[in-house]
Amino acid sequence: MTFLQQDLEQPVTYLDNSSTTQPCPTAVSRMTAALTEGWGNPSSLHRLGMVAQLEMDAARWLLAEKLSCKPAEVYFTGGGTEANNMALFGGAMAGRRRGNRVVTTAIEHPSVLEAAAALEKEGFQVVRLTPDSDGKVPAAALEEAIDKNTVLVSVMYVNNETGAIQPVEAAAAAIRRAGAPALLHCDCVQAFGKIPVRPARLGADLVTVSAHKIHGPKGVGALYVSGKARIVPRVFGGGQEKNLRPGTEPTPAIAGFRGALEELPEPAAQLPKMRRLRDYAEEKLRQTGEAVIHSTPDSLPYILNFSLPGLRSEILLHFLEERNIFVSSGSACARGKGSYVLRAQGISDRLADSAIRVSFSRYNTEADADRLADAIRAAAGRLRRQ
Amino acid sequence: MTFLQQDLEQPVTYLDNSSTTQPCPTAVSRMTAALTEGWGNPSSLHRLGMVAQLEMDAARWLLAEKLSCKPAEVYFTGGGTEANNMALFGGAMAGRRRGNRVVTTAIEHPSVLEAAAALEKEGFQVVRLTPDSDGKVPAAALEEAIDKNTVLVSVMYVNNETGAIQPVEAAAAAIRRAGAPALLHCDCVQAFGKIPVRPARLGADLVTVSAHKIHGPKGVGALYVSGKARIVPRVFGGGQEKNLRPGTEPTPAIAGFRGALEELPEPAAQLPKMRRLRDYAEEKLRQTGEAVIHSTPDSLPYILNFSLPGLRSEILLHFLEERNIFVSSGSACARGKGSYVLRAQGISDRLADSAIRVSFSRYNTEADADRLADAIRAAAGRLRRQ
Repeated sequence: MTFLQQDLEQPVTYLDNSSTTQPCPTAVSRMTAALTEGWGNPSSLHRLGMVAQLEMDAARWLLAEKLSCKPAEVYFTGGGTEANNMALFGGAMAGRRRGNRVVTTAIEHPSVLEAAAALEKEGFQVVRLTPDSDGKVPAAALEEAIDKNTVLVSVMYVNNETGAIQPVEAAAAAIRRAGAPALLHCDCVQAFGKIPVRPARLGADLVTVSAHKIHGPKGVGALYVSGKARIVPRVFGGGQEKNLRPGTEPTPAIAGFRGALEELPEPAAQLPKMRRLRDYAEEKLRQTGEAVIHSTPDSLPYILNFSLPGLRSEILLHFLEERNIFVSSGSACARGKGSYVLRAQGISDRLADSAIRVSFSRYNTEADADRLADAIRAAAGRLRRQ
Repeated sequence: MTFLQQDLEQPVTYLDNSSTTQPCPTAVSRMTAALTEGWGNPSSLHRLGMVAQLEMDAARWLLAEKLSCKPAEVYFTGGGTEANNMALFGGAMAGRRRGNRVVTTAIEHPSVLEAAAALEKEGFQVVRLTPDSDGKVPAAALEEAIDKNTVLVSVMYVNNETGAIQPVEAAAAAIRRAGAPALLHCDCVQAFGKIPVRPARLGADLVTVSAHKIHGPKGVGALYVSGKARIVPRVFGGGQEKNLRPGTEPTPAIAGFRGALEELPEPAAQLPKMRRLRDYAEEKLRQTGEAVIHSTPDSLPYILNFSLPGLRSEILLHFLEERNIFVSSGSACARGKGSYVLRAQGISDRLADSAIRVSFSRYNTEADADRLADAIRAAAGRLRRQ
C-alpha cells in the first residue's frame, strides 16, 4: 500500500475499523464492473439503464435478505448520515400532527444528535437519555421518557465509541405500552454485519446501515423503512428510491455494497472469534498495568475502548501511528472534540481525554493485539519516565 | 461490454450522454486507487486519514481551478440533486428574514422544481418563469419577477432536454438592479465541462455541478458557495464539508471526479467540434424529411432534441435500441412522464410526446450521427407504411 511505503519494515496493524474499513476484493471488483460495464443510468428506459437497474436490484435483494425484510423496504442513500437525517426529519415531520416529542439518547452519532437539535429548533421537544456507567441507556429511562405525545424514538443499537449495546427492544416495548404514535429509529451503522440486525425482531420501523463499516465503499448506506411506516421526504427531485431519496443513484458504490454483503460472514458465527480476539487484547492491555478499560464484557467485541490515564489520546494515537498501528481517539466523526459519549456515562475528563478506541474487523488477528499491547507497554514506560 | 454481447454484430452508438456518461479511464483508475490504497477515513487523525484527505483536497483544488474559484468555495455532495436541494433550501432559509420570494423557471431539473414546491408549502412565494418558443426564459421576465422581497433566484445554465442556454447573467443583473437580497443559484449540471462555467463571471452565488455527466462516476457532485454567500445547512452531523454536507465523504467517487476533471478538455476548445457534429447530425435528420428539430442553433451543441411527429418517443427509443443506438425520451430524470420542458415552451402535446433527446459527448463521431440518421430514416419509412 503506497501510503505505508515510508515504513515498510513494520507490519501494518489497522485497528480503526469502526472509522472505516478496507474495501474487500469483491466490493472492489463489483465497483470496477459497475464503472466499466454497468455504467448506465438506472432511470434510462433502454438496455443500459436496465442493466444498471438490475445490479441495483441485486444489491437491494441481498441487503433485504441480510435484514430479513422486503426489498421494497430498503432505500439506498449516500451514507449513514444521510439515512439518519432522513429518519429523524422524515419520521418526526410525518408525526407532527400527532405529537411533538422526540426521545433519543445522549450518546447517539452526531448525525442523530444534530438532527434532533435542529428538530428542537423547529418546535419539537427533544429528550436525550444518558447512559449508566456501563455505557447503556437503562430500559427504565426509555419507559419513563416515552409518552403518548412521542412521535419518534431514536436509539442506536451499538455505540460507536464503546461498543455498548443499547436496549432497542425495550424502546419498542415502551412505545407499545405507552400507546405512542412513535416510529422507532435504530442507527445500526456499528451493529450491522457484526450482530444480527433484523428490524422486525428489534421492533424498529427505521434502521440505518452503512457500507463502509463492513468492507464496502464510502458513499453508500441504506435506510430500512418498514412497509407499515410512513416518513416524509427530506430531499426532492426526480423520484428515485420512491421519492424518498431522489437523485441518480450512486450505482458504483451500490455495487460495492453488494460485493461487501456477498463476502460478509454470518454475524453470529463470527462473534465468538471476535470475542476471543477482544478478550485476548483486553487481557494483554491489562497486563501492561496501565490501561483502564471502558468497554464492558457484554459490549460488542469489535470495539475496545480504554485509557492510559495521564497520556492524552492524541499523543498515544501518534505514538502508535509511528509503529504503523492505527487507532482512533474517540470517533473519527467527532475529531479532536473529546468524547461526549464517555463523559455522558460519567467517566472523568482526565480519563475521557486519554481514551483510545481500538476497533477490530474479521481481518484482524492475535498478532495485531500483541503488537498493540507491546506498543502500549512502551508508551506506558515512556510515560512513567516523564 | 457484457451488456451488449447479445448483439455484437452492430457497433454501439451511445447518444444519451446527458443522462449519464461512461467513466473515463483516469476516473476508473483513480477510483480503484482510492478503494485499494487510499481507503482511510478523511476524518481520521492518523496517516491513513491524511492520505484520503489529501486525495480529496487534490480533487477540490482541481475543481476550483476549473470553476476559477477558491478551493474553500467547493463543497462536495452525493450528486447534483443533493447540491440543488442544499442551494434551494439553504439559500431560501438563510434569507427568510429578508424576504419570502423565490424566482425560478418552469424548465428547471425536478430537484429544483420539487424543492421549490416544498419551499412554497413552507410559506415562500414561488414564481416560475416560462420560456419563449426558443426554449429560453426572457431576460425581461427575470427583470420583472425579481423584486426587493426576493431571497433566492434559481436559473439553470443549460436546459437538460433542449440544450437551451439561459440568461443567467441577466438574472444576476436583475438582482442587482432590484436591490434584492437574493442569492443566485445556477444549476450547471449540463453546462459544466461543456461551456466555461465561472461562477464569478456568471454572477452566481451558488453553482451545482455533477461528475457523472462529464465521464466521472455517479454518486458525487459539488455545490460552489461563494465566500461572500451564506446558506444554512440542510443535513446535520459530524461537521464534514464545514458542516454544510456532513457524513463520511464519498472518497472513491471524489477521486473519480478528480480523474474525470483531469481528462476534461478545455470546454471552449471542444465546442467548435461539437457544433460541427451537432450540425452534421441535424442536417442528416432534416434530410430524412421527417424530423422536427426542437433545439435551436444557439443552444448547447451537446444536445439535439427532435420529434418524428406521430411516432411516440418510447416506440422510437426502443426501435433505435434494437440497433444499439441509445437515446432518451425527454430526460432520464423524468422517466415516462412526458416533457414538461417542451410543453412549457409551447410545443404541442403531439410533438412533445414524440420527442427524442440525442446527447453527445466528446467520444461521439460523425459515424454515430450517420447511424442515427439511417435508423431514423428506417423508422420514418416504417411509420409511413402504417
